[in-house]
Amino acid sequence: MRDVAVIGVGLTKFGELWDVSFRELMMEAGARAIENSGIDGKQIGAMYVGNMSSGQFIRQEHISSIVADHAGLVPIPSTRVEGACASGGLALRQAIIDVGSGLHDIVVAAGIEKMTDVLAGVATGALATAADQEWEVFVGATFPGLYALMARRHMYEFGTTEEQMAAVAVKNHRNACFNTCAQYQMEITVDDVMKSPPVTLPLKLLDCSPITDGAACAILASAEKARKLTDTPVLVAGTGQASDAISLHSRTSLTSLQATIEAARKAYKMAGVKPDDIDLAEVHDCFTIAEIMAIEDLEFCKKGEGGKVTEQGETAIGGRIPVNTSGGLKGKGHPVGATGIAQVVEIVQQLRGEAGKRQVDGAEIGLAHNVGGSGGTAVVHVLRRGD
Amino acid sequence: MRDVAVIGVGLTKFGELWDVSFRELMMEAGARAIENSGIDGKQIGAMYVGNMSSGQFIRQEHISSIVADHAGLVPIPSTRVEGACASGGLALRQAIIDVGSGLHDIVVAAGIEKMTDVLAGVATGALATAADQEWEVFVGATFPGLYALMARRHMYEFGTTEEQMAAVAVKNHRNACFNTCAQYQMEITVDDVMKSPPVTLPLKLLDCSPITDGAACAILASAEKARKLTDTPVLVAGTGQASDAISLHSRTSLTSLQATIEAARKAYKMAGVKPDDIDLAEVHDCFTIAEIMAIEDLEFCKKGEGGKVTEQGETAIGGRIPVNTSGGLKGKGHPVGATGIAQVVEIVQQLRGEAGKRQVDGAEIGLAHNVGGSGGTAVVHVLRRGD
Repeated sequence: MRDVAVIGVGLTKFGELWDVSFRELMMEAGARAIENSGIDGKQIGAMYVGNMSSGQFIRQEHISSIVADHAGLVPIPSTRVEGACASGGLALRQAIIDVGSGLHDIVVAAGIEKMTDVLAGVATGALATAADQEWEVFVGATFPGLYALMARRHMYEFGTTEEQMAAVAVKNHRNACFNTCAQYQMEITVDDVMKSPPVTLPLKLLDCSPITDGAACAILASAEKARKLTDTPVLVAGTGQASDAISLHSRTSLTSLQATIEAARKAYKMAGVKPDDIDLAEVHDCFTIAEIMAIEDLEFCKKGEGGKVTEQGETAIGGRIPVNTSGGLKGKGHPVGATGIAQVVEIVQQLRGEAGKRQVDGAEIGLAHNVGGSGGTAVVHVLRRGD
Repeated sequence: MRDVAVIGVGLTKFGELWDVSFRELMMEAGARAIENSGIDGKQIGAMYVGNMSSGQFIRQEHISSIVADHAGLVPIPSTRVEGACASGGLALRQAIIDVGSGLHDIVVAAGIEKMTDVLAGVATGALATAADQEWEVFVGATFPGLYALMARRHMYEFGTTEEQMAAVAVKNHRNACFNTCAQYQMEITVDDVMKSPPVTLPLKLLDCSPITDGAACAILASAEKARKLTDTPVLVAGTGQASDAISLHSRTSLTSLQATIEAARKAYKMAGVKPDDIDLAEVHDCFTIAEIMAIEDLEFCKKGEGGKVTEQGETAIGGRIPVNTSGGLKGKGHPVGATGIAQVVEIVQQLRGEAGKRQVDGAEIGLAHNVGGSGGTAVVHVLRRGD
């Protein structure tokens, strides 16, 4: 594969956007990314769109055609990619492989989910289709329930506390205050989390990421082309993807996601870096316990110490390894198909030094970690500032 | 991109398979393809699964994880690709790009749809989500209705007759009689079609492809690797994909699919062949008019003469350019996400000389043409016998 770089990124406001349609959301993110890249739309060779479940959320499949048409990009190839909440990360990866193969020089990776146009119960039910319907959901498991099982086991094995989980939410909300695209630009305290209504204990309302509308877009080019188009290319140093059993009961561990470990191993190897080399990361904090497990599985800390290092501020902006500077899924919001691309938007802005009050000083190498379901899919990307 | 070949194919029985689950269907096709290729499952590097709407048909997204798990292929990357009824063809294309990029040497392209576990009305509604929900379906258009509009216009512009459309169904049912996997292994007559119940005139029941359960699988390898693994590799000579407006009213023509024309142009160019060089083709006959338009758009005959050449037997086995020797979507069945892969299964069997009573003598080059929706997506592959 030839080298690939990100040349432009765009993000919409994340939130309950009842006055904006699916099409409008996607066009807004796309137009921002094209403007940000400085290219002309005519230069785009192909498009990949990450989306988990437009069929259930807005009763529309075949969105790849709608997006290409509304973006004025017909007749370029346009393909939807789905892997539950990892759909965005997978779309990015397909775009990287496309450019890497030499098939096209400039390719769009987009992600979108319009989730709030249905009743909350319908949205939660649709999200549960990321878990095993026959062996988990039909017998009563909810999606928060699956992560609650992981949290309980993590508490049992490693002594992780509910306060440590709350510290994840507190940090991510604090970061979100500096992100104008974030759904929740408000600080919360550990006490707020502890007193929030129970969802499935030990997870409480403020341990859970919200239901969100949003879209994100990144434009990729061959590294060679990128150097001609921009002074601030961000190189894709590594990509790793892995699968695991969709059901928790089929896994060897409840406190690690093997898919994360395997995807990270591949991405680190391809990039030629170690966990210590990463300056900042966006990780998949769909629930607070998920961030704790992620920073362990990505080897930013020892197994079992994710809660402790979070509580000690090591993952805060200014800490040893800032995590979810954007606000993460918890603070920024989690439009499931868009999340994997939105993570990369943040990493690119950080590596370019354009993250404003969220800026991590001297950031050179960033990592994005996107999970599908309760860990049936994981995808990890390592990005590097291209000088 | 490096050269890519198909080294193994597998197909399930197509039909109303109420005693077989989604997982079992996929495993059956996969096991057959692996056995057919002679490789060990451990050699597989990645998997792409084409599926239109498991979310609506079996209320399960994230099937990529389920398929990898049940196939015993965890932790390889597994990704679902969707483009309505073109999902299978798009999955094949992503697998080709993956191998072509050099990322993996052996990659699975699979397709599946389990459509009959819901009421017929639910299935028809789910299929309509391949069309524009806001601008077509909400105002009363059904999916057969959209193709009926194209048929009416084709009749008006070119004098195409209902009997000529019926001739497509008659030919494809005849071919399906020699395909043990086909849903309808029975001959029908033009009179049967003409007297079948109206769906949306001029389309009658026997002008329409059925609702089908089924799965298909193809295993791809780099051409270099393929030569070591098999004596009968089939080379992927060309791949082309294109998008168009999802809505009929946004198109310049009702009698051509511009996406087909554009995808074919790219595939022919990449393969270095002309339409005259193609020995046989599987085309997307979701309705009889669709096959007539396809053979025109693929330039197997002049525009407007698709009906005439079909009636004259030019597309029959033994004719000038045999089309849908498998029985096509009409006779073999149309499990939407599986169709694009199933087409390639047929082409591979033909190019290997393994098609039994359906065999096209001396077939060297074959084409597969897969359409999403009413033409919002099209993907064309040219395959060549590798000697």
